[in-house]
Amino acid sequence: MSRRGEFDLIAELFAPLAASTPGAYGLTDDAAVLEVPAGRSLVATTDAIVAGVHFLADDPPDLVARKLVRVNLSDLAAMGATPWGMLLTACLPRDVDDPWLESFAAGLKADRAEFGVDLIGGDTVATPGPATFSLTALGLVPTGTALLRRGACVGDVIVVSGTIGDAALGLKACRGSLGVAAAEARFLIDRYRLPQPRLGLGPRLIGLAHACLDVSDGLLQDLGHVCTLAGLGAGLGAGLGADLKADLIPLSPAARAAIVSAPERMESVLAGGDDYELLFTIAPEDMGRVESAAAIAGVAVTAIGRMVAAPGVRVLDADGGDVTPARRGYRHFGPETAEGKRQ
Amino acid sequence: MSRRGEFDLIAELFAPLAASTPGAYGLTDDAAVLEVPAGRSLVATTDAIVAGVHFLADDPPDLVARKLVRVNLSDLAAMGATPWGMLLTACLPRDVDDPWLESFAAGLKADRAEFGVDLIGGDTVATPGPATFSLTALGLVPTGTALLRRGACVGDVIVVSGTIGDAALGLKACRGSLGVAAAEARFLIDRYRLPQPRLGLGPRLIGLAHACLDVSDGLLQDLGHVCTLAGLGAGLGAGLGADLKADLIPLSPAARAAIVSAPERMESVLAGGDDYELLFTIAPEDMGRVESAAAIAGVAVTAIGRMVAAPGVRVLDADGGDVTPARRGYRHFGPETAEGKRQ
Repeated sequence: MSRRGEFDLIAELFAPLAASTPGAYGLTDDAAVLEVPAGRSLVATTDAIVAGVHFLADDPPDLVARKLVRVNLSDLAAMGATPWGMLLTACLPRDVDDPWLESFAAGLKADRAEFGVDLIGGDTVATPGPATFSLTALGLVPTGTALLRRGACVGDVIVVSGTIGDAALGLKACRGSLGVAAAEARFLIDRYRLPQPRLGLGPRLIGLAHACLDVSDGLLQDLGHVCTLAGLGAGLGAGLGADLKADLIPLSPAARAAIVSAPERMESVLAGGDDYELLFTIAPEDMGRVESAAAIAGVAVTAIGRMVAAPGVRVLDADGGDVTPARRGYRHFGPETAEGKRQ
Repeated sequence: MSRRGEFDLIAELFAPLAASTPGAYGLTDDAAVLEVPAGRSLVATTDAIVAGVHFLADDPPDLVARKLVRVNLSDLAAMGATPWGMLLTACLPRDVDDPWLESFAAGLKADRAEFGVDLIGGDTVATPGPATFSLTALGLVPTGTALLRRGACVGDVIVVSGTIGDAALGLKACRGSLGVAAAEARFLIDRYRLPQPRLGLGPRLIGLAHACLDVSDGLLQDLGHVCTLAGLGAGLGAGLGADLKADLIPLSPAARAAIVSAPERMESVLAGGDDYELLFTIAPEDMGRVESAAAIAGVAVTAIGRMVAAPGVRVLDADGGDVTPARRGYRHFGPETAEGKRQ
């Protein structure tokens, strides 16, 4: 097995990814120094992935890197921010060799180009455990306009971008047959491995969305956060509720095929995570403006329900019957880990 | 074993550490939103620690947390910056229980108070491997004044803060007897476990230091970085050299006692890391101003050598003889790992 030393790894694979940011000093200094433009606020978020937990040891390394980048950029999109820089922590076991790292760096390079965001710093250490990566993404948003999870109002329309449930079904497809066509399985697996942060849409929701987040832990659980936090900004206290219409939840043709062959998979659509679509609430009269913004961003948006005063998230069928599943979403550890959906 | 779930862990232990930063939204949102004050630039750095590599599983958890904070704040100090916020990634194995996490959080709380810096975000995930933590520290520096590793000039005096080698000897003391008095061993172990980021000194070196970094990987190796990078800013190319006087390197009484009992330990002083003292170069005529700044900061500074044109770092004895050791410092992995000093 061949492995570059720490300094060669940084100089050869990572430093080229810092070339567009003079204040990253080619990753040779103790820290990066950046000027926030006038009228902009800094947005900062961190997400980590662990081999055997969030990705599989034999997943393509470039896709592992790109998913790490994208789950972080999705958090920026959910704030209405645009990407500005990334810091990467790489904890590398001995069995991660040069070809794996080169592929990983190629994934970073691809998404650096796609999203116009440099690697501005990081740390590379050895670990006796699984390969572990943590990324801090920095973004910019016009000052005073960031989209927050709090802020939903009774009567707001609940909207999602794209389609829901593909990633959870894609993870199932990675593990075994879904009984769908090969092309459909590939589509779902691709949605699981390579999420699309909605960076074209998020900033266009500024001034429209009352509350916004990205669907990472599952539609019901993430909507639960919007409900719990509603009213916090206005000091309204106890939070709100949400009534979802099950038949309005946007499904891809592949997801629809997977559910036709096993209807209980609808629970994975509602509670599975990793979609990285935007979930937001708006005043009903703004739906047209949101649709126009989404058209410019090149992504579909779908109204799936309403914010209501009664706390809790309910899923209703076409006749108004309550079909809310017991499982709400993913927890990274704790009492619900045993039913966790990830590897 | 008892362990809080992810959301309780964040709400009960981490969210209180965000209370002074409104834009951290109590760690309930996708990201933090921060306003950089006019005339200030953002400084960003990341460092990670892994159980069994950078700390021992039975180290006091509060000290593990405080060392993680401090190694990052030390990077800010080396840029002349002041701390502004922190994002924490915690990868937790099943055997990390509530008491361990409570002690870890207590360490974060203590250093949050000591350095006036909030936890503004993070991520908490499960790992089948060792406990792993990554911290991104954000700082502020007056725009255009950040201290960089590049910039040293021929004739500059090389200066260090505090004393050198205590941490490397402290690590040896953790592993076995150094043959020094118990109080001296305790002092060295404390220096290893609880470094002092020189945040009082770093910002006061703005306008004085031509080049600056913190001694994390070893005095000789880190000084090598200063030499290699010298002239980069001015396009001078090949870098410079440094002549150190061995008998000028500032040693604590405890380190001196350890070296008296085993003179070969001087190599650990020169090549051992984890000191987190500032190493910087200045014009000779500025030494008085640097000493005044250091007196205000409450830390000693010592001139230990000169920048010279001939590339390379040399250690000279009192007679001018070359006593440079073969080993230069710590690498996190790669060819030199086998001789690595950490656990």
